[in-house]
Amino acid sequence: MTNKMNQPALVAELRELYMKYEAALCSNDTVVLDDFFWDSADVVRFGLNENQYGAEDIRAFRNSRPGFKLEREIINLKVVTFGADSAAVTLEFRRFINGVERFGRQSQMWQRFPQGWKVVSAHVSLLQT
Amino acid sequence: MTNKMNQPALVAELRELYMKYEAALCSNDTVVLDDFFWDSADVVRFGLNENQYGAEDIRAFRNSRPGFKLEREIINLKVVTFGADSAAVTLEFRRFINGVERFGRQSQMWQRFPQGWKVVSAHVSLLQT
Repeated sequence: MTNKMNQPALVAELRELYMKYEAALCSNDTVVLDDFFWDSADVVRFGLNENQYGAEDIRAFRNSRPGFKLEREIINLKVVTFGADSAAVTLEFRRFINGVERFGRQSQMWQRFPQGWKVVSAHVSLLQT
Repeated sequence: MTNKMNQPALVAELRELYMKYEAALCSNDTVVLDDFFWDSADVVRFGLNENQYGAEDIRAFRNSRPGFKLEREIINLKVVTFGADSAAVTLEFRRFINGVERFGRQSQMWQRFPQGWKVVSAHVSLLQT
């Protein structure tokens, strides 16, 4: 059963890991991004315009946009941990797309493996306008 | 550490639970929906047009739309379990909004508590058109 929610040291560890992920995302560091995602056929990523199943699909997507840079402001970053091995990481963001200010949301499920913490499921979307 | 991924009996249990959730969602059975969500200030729900933090916010949203009915076709329902207490449940859906066919995605993180399996984080969105 899940117990020991939100142990402070673990929440702090995940926040720090998340900020490394965010930096890699914004600078399009595909090697780091790839390492953060679970290397499995069962990992899922729902991006703004794409549904990806499995690490190969996600890797191909990352590698398909060399030079991609992301500028966004993140808001309400929230880390909730369950026991020692599971965490929900959510945030809202604000960015400009084709010159238009848009607000979005991102949620990730993280799981701890012998290789470290990995994103096992991710979902990014924009609020409807 | 996470081990024993995708134990067949557990995956089957979660799929069955998920289908009960889906039925409650489509028939707007707010009591059942409320019971499926984690009763905590830390639960997060990103809906199509709303960002909700905490069980009270989510409950208020559910109760704000009496008579709401949802018709949707679900596609690619996928359950991935991690150990005995954590699961990622994802799906795609097709529905008509204002007469227009739209495709969307839903992801949920489920966690097992003494009270049973609960959705601790949820995200629903439409693909951009």
